[in-house]
Amino acid sequence: MSGKGTPETLYFKDNMLHLLDQRLLPNKLSYRVCKSPEEVAAAVREMSVRGAPAIGVSAAYGYLLAVIEAKEKGFTGTDFFSHIETAFNTLAGARPTAVNLVWALQRMQEKLEHYRDCSAQMICLEMNKEADSIFAEDYRNNMLIGKHGSALVEGKSSFLTHCNAGALATAGYGTALGVIRASHEEGKVLKVYADETRPLLQGARLTAFELMEEGVPVALITDSCAGSLMQQGKIDLVVVGADRIAANGDTANKIGTYSLAVLASYHWIPFYVAAPLSTIDLSLVTGQDINIENRAAEEITSIGREKVAPDGVEALNPAFDVTPAGLIRAIITEKGVVHEPDRDKIEALFHNW
Amino acid sequence: MSGKGTPETLYFKDNMLHLLDQRLLPNKLSYRVCKSPEEVAAAVREMSVRGAPAIGVSAAYGYLLAVIEAKEKGFTGTDFFSHIETAFNTLAGARPTAVNLVWALQRMQEKLEHYRDCSAQMICLEMNKEADSIFAEDYRNNMLIGKHGSALVEGKSSFLTHCNAGALATAGYGTALGVIRASHEEGKVLKVYADETRPLLQGARLTAFELMEEGVPVALITDSCAGSLMQQGKIDLVVVGADRIAANGDTANKIGTYSLAVLASYHWIPFYVAAPLSTIDLSLVTGQDINIENRAAEEITSIGREKVAPDGVEALNPAFDVTPAGLIRAIITEKGVVHEPDRDKIEALFHNW
Repeated sequence: MSGKGTPETLYFKDNMLHLLDQRLLPNKLSYRVCKSPEEVAAAVREMSVRGAPAIGVSAAYGYLLAVIEAKEKGFTGTDFFSHIETAFNTLAGARPTAVNLVWALQRMQEKLEHYRDCSAQMICLEMNKEADSIFAEDYRNNMLIGKHGSALVEGKSSFLTHCNAGALATAGYGTALGVIRASHEEGKVLKVYADETRPLLQGARLTAFELMEEGVPVALITDSCAGSLMQQGKIDLVVVGADRIAANGDTANKIGTYSLAVLASYHWIPFYVAAPLSTIDLSLVTGQDINIENRAAEEITSIGREKVAPDGVEALNPAFDVTPAGLIRAIITEKGVVHEPDRDKIEALFHNW
Repeated sequence: MSGKGTPETLYFKDNMLHLLDQRLLPNKLSYRVCKSPEEVAAAVREMSVRGAPAIGVSAAYGYLLAVIEAKEKGFTGTDFFSHIETAFNTLAGARPTAVNLVWALQRMQEKLEHYRDCSAQMICLEMNKEADSIFAEDYRNNMLIGKHGSALVEGKSSFLTHCNAGALATAGYGTALGVIRASHEEGKVLKVYADETRPLLQGARLTAFELMEEGVPVALITDSCAGSLMQQGKIDLVVVGADRIAANGDTANKIGTYSLAVLASYHWIPFYVAAPLSTIDLSLVTGQDINIENRAAEEITSIGREKVAPDGVEALNPAFDVTPAGLIRAIITEKGVVHEPDRDKIEALFHNW
């Protein structure tokens, strides 16, 4: 471990969004600078930034960049707002599954409506504040998720996690890794087994990196090793993040999450989802309605510069799968823990603020 | 598909064992030439040749090379046999899990005992015949496994397979892929989903290659996608090979096999193991006694020339896991199908020749 701590996922400075280019980790620490909503959308699409909450925060700043552009170009009236609306659509279309993206854009839009009749100067100021709030709230929510989650951990435990739901997937601290961080602070982490998470290896590149930086004991495994570790009694609990949670608790998350949930259930190991309320999409009745992104075959057939499959082979590359609520022991949110999640319990979360 | 057919896994010619270097597939078709038992052991250890039956056949020829060496060096009496014994041990230690390795060596040794008092010339001739028999029997057994397995397939079906238990893992035709080949010949294959099989990607590099060469419809997936496809009803049956089967039917096979067996059980999908009797180790009471090889962390932390994990990260890399017999619908052998395998049914296989 280096003990330097995880670098910032993103920051907004001098009217530019700086995104840690996660495709280059852990080999290179470099920020991608976005000056326009289109550049933010491209960074999201190309996964320089990823993780549902981080995508949400990035989109908020992308929206802010559109507002700043509209002001700097001297647009007024309809021109001002239609410029922003175009950016909204570009950003919203960058990736389909993480609901935080549209959630953050809609929140920015509502704020804009509120200041509709103000000066461009004033609007910029207020929108900047709103994006900063989304950032700060995400960070704070993750601290709360960590606190609520660590309370579920009994004694020194071995965790399994999939993909990266860490500081790098959020404004900071992380959701699933927030739970692990908070547990580590309380001395409850024996070891974290990190699935490498094919095809893009977020577990190997990001989670292992992040946990080592934080001094949390971590062992990297291939995705297909997890079941065998459970069989050997080496896993005490599984905790993952989420990209979109339907009203009934069905959860879309990185491909492979569903398999882990089935395996955990078979071995009587608790399976937890850690996510902020901004990841819950009450408009979807069940997980069957979640739009699952299919990505390019090349993510599987090539690794870096190396071709690892025959030319022209068909490859299926869904980025996510859906875990039914029945396989989830609890959803850990900033508002508390929803045990054995269902429609009523989830709805109650939104009413008991 | 190229339709050229799968290249030969190995052949013995001019007192040299030619092994298709599978580490270079599918990008390069090149044979590694072994002139000594040590060179064969190195090729097995470095996985130029892999797959339990192919390892067994290679070991038989490695043993033959030791006999030829002993003859060419003019060894007689104890020197002759101790030279061969040293080679036996070197070959037997190349990899620990596939029992076919030791099975083939023991069979060669028994034959040698039989010709102990003959001339070196005669011994060489007979040992060459024995190695050729092991090769030919493996091929023939796979054809029978294919025939028995395809009889289990009802109508046009979608298969899932893991790693490579194909022609490339055997003398030819394959075990699990033998079942798929035979089913394809009978028009019963809708599609084969091939797990890429991390860390060494035998599914992407070998199985996808082999099935395309044979004109069998194949789609490559990441290992963690299999559960989601089962959830969606896209998999009708799972068929895999084996590296060692204990007396009670517990089966060691490529890491990830156990997870697939649990997932198949959860989704009521038949899970089949296809393997010759030479893979069954009656000396082991249960799968708990199987020695599981742990391989280098670098197989996970680097891919080709690319580093994909932080420096110094711990990585667990067991090459195999053990699937309990209770999760196996049937073991498909050259002697017939063992439904719901247990100790008695497996023992009966060996008595009813």
